[in-house]
Amino acid sequence: MTKDTIICPIPPLDMDAAYAAQQCLDSLAKLPGSLGLLEDLAVQLAAMTAKEQPTFVKKRVVLFAGDHHIAKSGVSASDSAVTIMQVYNFLRGGGCINSYCRNANADLVIVDAGIQEDLPHEPDIAHLVRRKVIYGAKDFSQEAAMTRQEAVACVQLGINMAHEAAKDGVTLLAAGEMGIGNTSPSSAIVSVMTKRPLSEVTGKGGGLDNEGVKRKIAVIQRGLDLHKPDPNDGLDVLAKVGGAEIGAMAGLMLGGAALRIPVVIDGFIAGAAALIAAGINKDVCNMLVGSHQSAEAGHDITMQMLGIKTYLPLGLRLGEGTGAALMFPIIDASVRILSEMVSLDKMENFR
Amino acid sequence: MTKDTIICPIPPLDMDAAYAAQQCLDSLAKLPGSLGLLEDLAVQLAAMTAKEQPTFVKKRVVLFAGDHHIAKSGVSASDSAVTIMQVYNFLRGGGCINSYCRNANADLVIVDAGIQEDLPHEPDIAHLVRRKVIYGAKDFSQEAAMTRQEAVACVQLGINMAHEAAKDGVTLLAAGEMGIGNTSPSSAIVSVMTKRPLSEVTGKGGGLDNEGVKRKIAVIQRGLDLHKPDPNDGLDVLAKVGGAEIGAMAGLMLGGAALRIPVVIDGFIAGAAALIAAGINKDVCNMLVGSHQSAEAGHDITMQMLGIKTYLPLGLRLGEGTGAALMFPIIDASVRILSEMVSLDKMENFR
Repeated sequence: MTKDTIICPIPPLDMDAAYAAQQCLDSLAKLPGSLGLLEDLAVQLAAMTAKEQPTFVKKRVVLFAGDHHIAKSGVSASDSAVTIMQVYNFLRGGGCINSYCRNANADLVIVDAGIQEDLPHEPDIAHLVRRKVIYGAKDFSQEAAMTRQEAVACVQLGINMAHEAAKDGVTLLAAGEMGIGNTSPSSAIVSVMTKRPLSEVTGKGGGLDNEGVKRKIAVIQRGLDLHKPDPNDGLDVLAKVGGAEIGAMAGLMLGGAALRIPVVIDGFIAGAAALIAAGINKDVCNMLVGSHQSAEAGHDITMQMLGIKTYLPLGLRLGEGTGAALMFPIIDASVRILSEMVSLDKMENFR
Repeated sequence: MTKDTIICPIPPLDMDAAYAAQQCLDSLAKLPGSLGLLEDLAVQLAAMTAKEQPTFVKKRVVLFAGDHHIAKSGVSASDSAVTIMQVYNFLRGGGCINSYCRNANADLVIVDAGIQEDLPHEPDIAHLVRRKVIYGAKDFSQEAAMTRQEAVACVQLGINMAHEAAKDGVTLLAAGEMGIGNTSPSSAIVSVMTKRPLSEVTGKGGGLDNEGVKRKIAVIQRGLDLHKPDPNDGLDVLAKVGGAEIGAMAGLMLGGAALRIPVVIDGFIAGAAALIAAGINKDVCNMLVGSHQSAEAGHDITMQMLGIKTYLPLGLRLGEGTGAALMFPIIDASVRILSEMVSLDKMENFR
């Protein structure tokens, strides 16, 4: 039986843990509230994890790769061949996300969700997780990106990766991506789900000029006019104008949320995936943590729609999960004090 | 012979190293400029350190403690006794800055620069660096905070701590502080050096209400009217309305800059110290790196005056060096890619 929907129940925020964390923060040897947003963040993480003192010893970025045949329609400054080259690069440790993961003491897992060709079986890339659902998303300006069953399979792949992470002891996740052309499906998704015109949520992606952006908007608009995706059905939007890695990212968020593993949202593509996830189960938003403010148009609109705060206005527009990986040490800092700092009462007896 | 000035030559930025770092960034397997502010930061760090690929394996926060007798004049919500309690707390590992330093894999060195009493010689606090210059800064609303010679000694202490850090192999520094009442001298310094009225640069510090802030402004204004510090002479400002830990922080910045060790600026107090350092040798600004945007009034004005960018709008107002310690992993990330990422040319041969 082929599945045509996703059932992924998500537990509620634990307000008792949140209350306990807030009480703890207010009791510590510092002025109440003097850690600003990091105190709110610590309380949120307690509520998400249902732990008064959450810890994130094992962190992981799961990077899903997938191609987009729409890249050949003049919406992308790069060629799809770059997807597979970058996947090789990540598998060999030479990408920006490799460096940022090492910096944050986080694992990096690379998943083929929808690359347009198969990578050969070579020893030095044996750690590639081969879970290809499609050989690239079809050009959605001409036909649906994939079938609904394929969309379900992509999301289920992400959910499975969250469960595998949990088995490995991971307690903090982020979804990263590589897919030449994937700002186009992301703009399509963001436009549909936020009901904003494409012109407000379409940017230069991987280096288009102003003319290129206009052309990109026209191509995406053709797809939206052709398919009329249903904004109330995340899987419909994903199947019609999405992509394999975007669906898998949405699944990682849903799966993480179901397991009380907070998932850090990277940039524009991850935001679009979060909209898909929220379109499947809106409770997922409770378990997502923002990171950087992407320089790509539409990211702010997405994060506002999701009700997720961002923290790092660094002007990144690289993807891969890089912004999320930069957030890991700040998340660690926000919760460490819950267990490491002395209380005001205790300090006042110090002499 | 007592010294009455500080001579601390600072080398120029190395534009060859900056150029090489920029060339490297542009050659990497990513779109040029796609790491936003972190690319600018990497280039700046190359220029500061005169290294094409700077690395910051050993990082250190030097936390200077000092008291302020002006705290008794109604400008502070806390009692000066808290300074020494917090110093004990830091020495025993229970402060926020201890936690953040562990998080950033950084050393923490605690220095008595001007605590109003001597700490006893107990084994568990033997690692306190005892370099007291004064027993607390005098109430500058009544008399000068310290003599000019004492001001010189405070700055020299900070310079010495930078040299000791260099000997220990430290390549990245931050100046932290603990001193109940020290937002008042900081507001005085910022007002004098930026020529802005006290009302724009005076905040609630450690938890004053609106009436308290008005009273604080009146007390500080009395001091400024009494002493008329010379904005063109950093040591004059420090002696008349400053404090021991502020002078020592300024010294750490000058000493770090002289040694090409970038110094990360924390919040409002550190900003005031940077203004003192710039008042001694304006070239110091080249070697300073911003971190968080303090919630304390006047921090933005200070950082603009210094021409130093901030990166983390987290609403912190704790001090201790906490904002700077949060910046350490982001600084690491910005430079690691220079040596860890593959070039676009090399990636294009991957299959």
